[in-house]
Amino acid sequence: MPTYKAPVGDVMFLLSDVFHIDRYNNLPGFADATPDLLEAVLDEAAKFCEDVLTPLNRVGDKEGCKRSADGSVATPTGFKDAYKRLTDGGWIGASAPAEFGGQGLPMALTQSIGEFLCSANMAFAMYPGLTQGASAAILAHGSTDQKALYLPKLVSGQWTGTMNLTEPQCGTDLGLVRTRATPQGDGSYKITGTKIFISAGEHDLAENIVHLVLARIDGAPEGTKGISLFIVPKFLPGKDGAISARNALVCGSIEEKMGIHGNSTCVMNFDGATGWLMGEANRGLNAMFVMMNEARLGVGVQGLALSEVAYQNAAAYAKERLAGRALTGAKFKDKPADPIIVQPDVRRMLMTMRAFNEAARALVLWTALKSDIAHRSGDAKERQAADDHMGLMTPVIKGVLTDQGFANTVMAQQVFGGHGYIAEHGMEQFVRDARIAMIYEGANGIQALDLVGRKLPRDGGRALQAFFAEVSAYIKEQGADAAMAPYVKPLAQALGELQQATMWFMQNALGNPENAGAGSTDYMHLFGLVALGYMWCLIVQAAKAKAASGNGAGDLMAAKLASGRFFAERLLPGATTHLARIKAGAASTMALPAEAF
Amino acid sequence: MPTYKAPVGDVMFLLSDVFHIDRYNNLPGFADATPDLLEAVLDEAAKFCEDVLTPLNRVGDKEGCKRSADGSVATPTGFKDAYKRLTDGGWIGASAPAEFGGQGLPMALTQSIGEFLCSANMAFAMYPGLTQGASAAILAHGSTDQKALYLPKLVSGQWTGTMNLTEPQCGTDLGLVRTRATPQGDGSYKITGTKIFISAGEHDLAENIVHLVLARIDGAPEGTKGISLFIVPKFLPGKDGAISARNALVCGSIEEKMGIHGNSTCVMNFDGATGWLMGEANRGLNAMFVMMNEARLGVGVQGLALSEVAYQNAAAYAKERLAGRALTGAKFKDKPADPIIVQPDVRRMLMTMRAFNEAARALVLWTALKSDIAHRSGDAKERQAADDHMGLMTPVIKGVLTDQGFANTVMAQQVFGGHGYIAEHGMEQFVRDARIAMIYEGANGIQALDLVGRKLPRDGGRALQAFFAEVSAYIKEQGADAAMAPYVKPLAQALGELQQATMWFMQNALGNPENAGAGSTDYMHLFGLVALGYMWCLIVQAAKAKAASGNGAGDLMAAKLASGRFFAERLLPGATTHLARIKAGAASTMALPAEAF
Repeated sequence: MPTYKAPVGDVMFLLSDVFHIDRYNNLPGFADATPDLLEAVLDEAAKFCEDVLTPLNRVGDKEGCKRSADGSVATPTGFKDAYKRLTDGGWIGASAPAEFGGQGLPMALTQSIGEFLCSANMAFAMYPGLTQGASAAILAHGSTDQKALYLPKLVSGQWTGTMNLTEPQCGTDLGLVRTRATPQGDGSYKITGTKIFISAGEHDLAENIVHLVLARIDGAPEGTKGISLFIVPKFLPGKDGAISARNALVCGSIEEKMGIHGNSTCVMNFDGATGWLMGEANRGLNAMFVMMNEARLGVGVQGLALSEVAYQNAAAYAKERLAGRALTGAKFKDKPADPIIVQPDVRRMLMTMRAFNEAARALVLWTALKSDIAHRSGDAKERQAADDHMGLMTPVIKGVLTDQGFANTVMAQQVFGGHGYIAEHGMEQFVRDARIAMIYEGANGIQALDLVGRKLPRDGGRALQAFFAEVSAYIKEQGADAAMAPYVKPLAQALGELQQATMWFMQNALGNPENAGAGSTDYMHLFGLVALGYMWCLIVQAAKAKAASGNGAGDLMAAKLASGRFFAERLLPGATTHLARIKAGAASTMALPAEAF
Repeated sequence: MPTYKAPVGDVMFLLSDVFHIDRYNNLPGFADATPDLLEAVLDEAAKFCEDVLTPLNRVGDKEGCKRSADGSVATPTGFKDAYKRLTDGGWIGASAPAEFGGQGLPMALTQSIGEFLCSANMAFAMYPGLTQGASAAILAHGSTDQKALYLPKLVSGQWTGTMNLTEPQCGTDLGLVRTRATPQGDGSYKITGTKIFISAGEHDLAENIVHLVLARIDGAPEGTKGISLFIVPKFLPGKDGAISARNALVCGSIEEKMGIHGNSTCVMNFDGATGWLMGEANRGLNAMFVMMNEARLGVGVQGLALSEVAYQNAAAYAKERLAGRALTGAKFKDKPADPIIVQPDVRRMLMTMRAFNEAARALVLWTALKSDIAHRSGDAKERQAADDHMGLMTPVIKGVLTDQGFANTVMAQQVFGGHGYIAEHGMEQFVRDARIAMIYEGANGIQALDLVGRKLPRDGGRALQAFFAEVSAYIKEQGADAAMAPYVKPLAQALGELQQATMWFMQNALGNPENAGAGSTDYMHLFGLVALGYMWCLIVQAAKAKAASGNGAGDLMAAKLASGRFFAERLLPGATTHLARIKAGAASTMALPAEAF
C-alpha cells in the first residue's frame, strides 16, 4: 500500500525563499496570508490528504463507481465521508472571493493544496477540481443572478460542477458539437444531446450537480462560431436556492477506463433538459478558453502530483529492497545484499524524478502567482504581463508536466521491478491514473499547437520576448558567479537552442505551417526544459542563501544543489535533440500519402 | 475492438531482400525453408493470429484467469480451444529439432511467428513462449533421458513449461534464492519453497506443466554458486511418459496485476515436491544464462509486437477520425472536418512508431539468423562470431525494444485521445500489457548493466569490435553514394557518438565503475539507435534495389525510404543527448546520501 507525505516544507521554501511571496502583499488577500498562516493551512491540508485520502486511493481504484438502473451513481466506500470533511474544511473555496463564501487566499496556495489532493487520491481530487473550474467559469461569465445563485453553493462544495464538452463525434474539434439548445421564450432553453467522458457527471457526494454544457442554439451558425455555454443543473434551483424539480438529464453509463476509477466518467444524456445561457450566445468557446488557463494549470499539477507520490514510494522501496552489491563493493556487509538505492541506475531514476518534481513545483507556483497578479493587481500593465505569462506557460505546464509526470510514474514503477506490476503496491495505479492527464483538457499535441501556433505569435510575440528577456537578463546577471556556473551555463545553452528553434519557425513556418506543426511537441518540451532549468537556478540561488543564513537547513539545501546539478547535467542536454528534430522540418514527417499508413 | 494484420510481407522482404536468407542454405533446415515455404508458413500463422487470437485478446483481459479453491486455474473463454489449434498446427515446435518432433525450421521464422502471436494476444502467446523456453533449457542442459522424456511433449505442446526463479525476497539477485532441494537417495530431490510471479504456473490448457525450478541443495554454498536447476513436473511422468501421480506443488494464488490478465501469473508453493536435477549441481545459474539470450530476444519481440499492433490501430483511427483542418487548408472540403492524419503532430507519432517497428523487426531477424548460425553452423569461427553477436545484441534488443515498444503503445493510445483511455478500443490494454516486458526476464536496468558491465568487456571487447567494424566498413563503403547519404551520414554521426561513449567508459569507469553504471541505460539506448539506424540503411538499400527491379513494389519501397529518412532525421539525433548524459558521469547521480531520498 503506497504512502504519501505532502511536501509542505518544499512549498513553503518556494513561496518564501524562492518567490518571496511577501513582496506581493499589495495584492488583495495576500497581506493576510502570512507565512505562518500559509504553513498552517498547508499542514492541515497535508494531514487530510495523508490520513484520509491516501488510504482511499486503492479502494477507489478497486471498487470504482457503480451506476444503478435509474442512472444514479454510487462513489466508492469512504468517498462520501471524505467529501464531507473536505467541504467542512472549506478547502474548495480557499481562493474564491469572500463575497461568495471563499477565503480569498492566493491561487498559489490552492494549486499546492491541489497537488496534495491529487498525490493522495487523484480520482477523488477531480470532484472538487471540477467544481473549482465551474466556479471560475461562472465567476468570469455568469450574470449577477447566476453568480448569486450558484457560486455560494459551489464554493462551499454543497453542489459540485462539471464541464460538458465532448460528444462521440467531437473532442478536440468543438466546432462539431451537435447538442441543441431550443429557446423556451422564458429565458431558458431546452438542451438535447449526448455528452461523453464527463468527469464527475453523476455521483452521490453532493445534493446537486451544476453542468456547464456546450450546445448550439437552434439556427446558430455552423462551426465554432455557433456554440454557446449553458448552465444545466441536475436539480432545478428554486428561488430560494434550494433544489426543486429533477432536470431531464441522466447518466446513461459509466465509461470503463484505464484508471481514475474512483471518479465517475459518465455518458450524459440531455433530453430536453432546462438550461440557461451563460455569457453571450454563440460565444461559448471564448468563454471556455478564458477559464482554460487555470484548468490546464490544474491538470499540469496532476502530472506533478502523481510524479511526486510515485517518487516517494520508489525512494522508500529502493532504500528497503535488498539485491546485489554496490558496484564499488558491499556497503552493508552484515546484510545478505545491499539496498538497491546504492545502484547508479536506480539513482538515475530517482534523481530524474526528483529533479523534475522540485522544478515543476516551482514552475507551477511561479505561474500561479502570476495568475493571482493577473486577477488581483490594481496595475493594468502588471496584470497584462502576468496574463501574458499565464497564456504562454499554460500549454507548457499542461503538456510537459503531464508527459513527464506520466513517464516518472512509469520510472517509479520500474524501481519496484515485478512488484511494480502487481496491484498490491499501488505503483501501477499511479501509471494508469497519470495517463489521463496527457489526454484530457486538451491532448498534449493540442497544447503544443496552442503554444506554437497561438501563444508564440500573439501580440507580436510579446509574451515570449518577455520570457526570453527575463531569462537572458538572469543569465547575464549571474554570469560572473563561478559557483552558479554549473547551473547557469547549461541553462544558457538550452535557452540558445530554444531561441534557435524559435528563429527556425519564424523563417520556415510562415511559408509552410506544417514545419511548425511537425516540430511543435519538441518545441513544447524544449521550452519546458528551459523553464524548468530556470526554476532550478532560482532554487539553487535561494538554497545557497538559506544555507548561508545558517538556520539549520543545510542538508536540505545541499540536496537542492545536487538535484539542480543533476537536472543541468542530465536533463537539460535533451534540448539539443529537440532542436535537431525541429530543424528537420516537416518533409519526412509528411512524406507518405495517407494510404501508406 | 482492435484489429490486426500480421506483417507477412515485411518479414518476407526482410528475410529475402535485406538478409538474403538463401545465402544460409548450408545450415541444416535452411535449404528446405524456401521462400515459398516460409511465406506459406507465415500466412498460416497470420491467419491463426488474426482470426482466432485477436478476438480473444480483450476476452482474456476482461475475464482473466480464475483460481479455484483446490489450486486449479481456469484460463479465459476460448483459450483452451485456441491452444488446441496452436498445438494441432505444430507451431510451438516449428524450430525444434526433428528428433524431438519439431520441424527444424529457422529460429528467425519462429521469432516472426512469435511477433504475430504477441501482437494478436500477448497473454496467450506467453503459454507457448514459456514452453519454448523450457524446451531450450532441457535441450541445452538435460540428460539424454530427460530430453527423451520431456522434449517430445513440450515440442508438441502436449505439456507446457515454466521458469520458477523469483521468490518474495529475490528477483534480480538470484543469489538470495531460499527454495530448498533435499536429495532422496534415488536421484530425485524434494523441493520446498515459494516462488512468485510464475507466468503460466497453473492453467487448464495442457495435461501437464513442467516447472524448471531454481533451488539450493541442502548444504550448498551461499550465494549464486549454490543454486541448482530442477525439473519439477506438475504430474510425475511414468516410465511410458504418461502422467501419473500429482506432485506436491500447487498454485497458492494468482497475482492481481496491471495487464496480461489472460496469463496466469502464479504464486507457486512447492511442498516437498519431487524434482530432478538438470545439469550440474550448483551450476543452475549458468544453465539459466545460456538459455537467457533466446528468452530475452523473445521478450524484445513482445515490445515490437505490441508497438506494431498499437501502430496499426492508431493509423486506422487517424485516417477515420475527423477533427479540425489541415494546417495548409482543408483537404476534404466535403466533410465536416479533415481526418486527423493530416495533422503533422499525429504524423509525427505514427512515423515514430513505424520507423521504429520496421527497423526493430529487422534487428530481431538479423539477430535470430545469428542464433541459427550459432546453433547450426559447422564452422566454429562462424559459430563464435554469431554467438558474440547474440550476446552483445540481446540486452540491446530486450531493453530498447521493450522500452520503446511500451512508449509506442502510449503514443498510439494518444492518437485516440479520450477514446484511447477507455477500454472499448483496446488501446489501453496494449499499454498495460506492454509494460511488463520492460520488467521481466531481467529488468531493463539489468539489461543495460549486462551490456556495459559484461558484454562490452567480454573477450577483450571482441563482440563490440566486430560490430563497430561491420558498421564502420558499411559506412565507408556507402560513403560515395550520394543517394544513401541522408541515411548513412546520420548513422556515421551516431556511431561516432557511440564510440566516444565507449571510449569514455574505458577512460572513466575502470577507476570508478559507478561512471559506467550511471550511464548504462543511456548507453543501451544509444547502442539501440545505432543498431536500428544501421538496419534502416540495409532496408533502404534493399528497397532501392527492389524498386529498381521494377516488380511493382514501388509504393511500398518508397514508403521504406520515407520511414528510413524520418528515423535518420528525427530519431537518430537522440544519440547526442545520450552521449552528453553518459559523459556527465556519476557525480551528480550519486551525490546525495541515501537518507536524503
